[in-house]
Amino acid sequence: MPLSKSELKAFFEKPRMAHLATSSRNGKPRVTPIWFIYENGLFYFTTRLGRLKGKQIQRNPEVALSIAADDHPYVAVCAFGKAEIVRENRDRWMERLALRYGEEDVKGYLARSTVQSDRVVMALKPERVLSWHYGRDDSKRQDEGVSMATET
Amino acid sequence: MPLSKSELKAFFEKPRMAHLATSSRNGKPRVTPIWFIYENGLFYFTTRLGRLKGKQIQRNPEVALSIAADDHPYVAVCAFGKAEIVRENRDRWMERLALRYGEEDVKGYLARSTVQSDRVVMALKPERVLSWHYGRDDSKRQDEGVSMATET
Repeated sequence: MPLSKSELKAFFEKPRMAHLATSSRNGKPRVTPIWFIYENGLFYFTTRLGRLKGKQIQRNPEVALSIAADDHPYVAVCAFGKAEIVRENRDRWMERLALRYGEEDVKGYLARSTVQSDRVVMALKPERVLSWHYGRDDSKRQDEGVSMATET
Repeated sequence: MPLSKSELKAFFEKPRMAHLATSSRNGKPRVTPIWFIYENGLFYFTTRLGRLKGKQIQRNPEVALSIAADDHPYVAVCAFGKAEIVRENRDRWMERLALRYGEEDVKGYLARSTVQSDRVVMALKPERVLSWHYGRDDSKRQDEGVSMATET
């Protein structure tokens, strides 16, 4: 059984880790865990443009995100689309991320990271969102996107 | 603080979800959750060669894996390398995966999936394993690989 809209919303409200996949110039995938906030249909996260992840996104803004519950019943959501820099309220987004994920020293975290000149907040606007109860590749899944462009 | 060898082992022993990133022909990354077993330095998982993930791996065996704890303290492990089909003991690996992840109906799961002629077990042999305490991009991390080839 796929997730309903309200189940999806509840799933995103918990401060779960998301796993963000990017691609290198030569097509090697990379994936690392990130904190995220889902709001108004966008996934917000922070990264540094001078680091590998940030460099890869600048070169190829196509990214993918995977979020799964570690407990039963297995539930997962994957999103695919382009990530863009969010120009406004960077520090406010970072504060919200730190608060959401229970950062023990929010002030210290913000003091250290907001001075990083390459630190940005980005938003993934998904072209496609899949959700499913995980366990087997053939479990049912739900497509939640307008564009259903075939991946090649 | 990065993870010690014994901490890594303990981290992999828990049936956590792993997130496997693959690349499309045109360089779009894709990432989906998988079950895994870590043994003898390899990450074992199952997929179907006729499905998108299996097709992408056949075309480009370079994959990446991300595993994170959802609870504090945040801990994450990422692995990068090539995935190859494991020719022996496919059904035994699948049974072990299903048992490890608490599949309620292991017999039914195996009955349904082992008849899939494109169902394979694959192993990722990591060229590089990173582990770190997550929360900030600048947290310390540990490289656990022989090859430290620069990603480009």
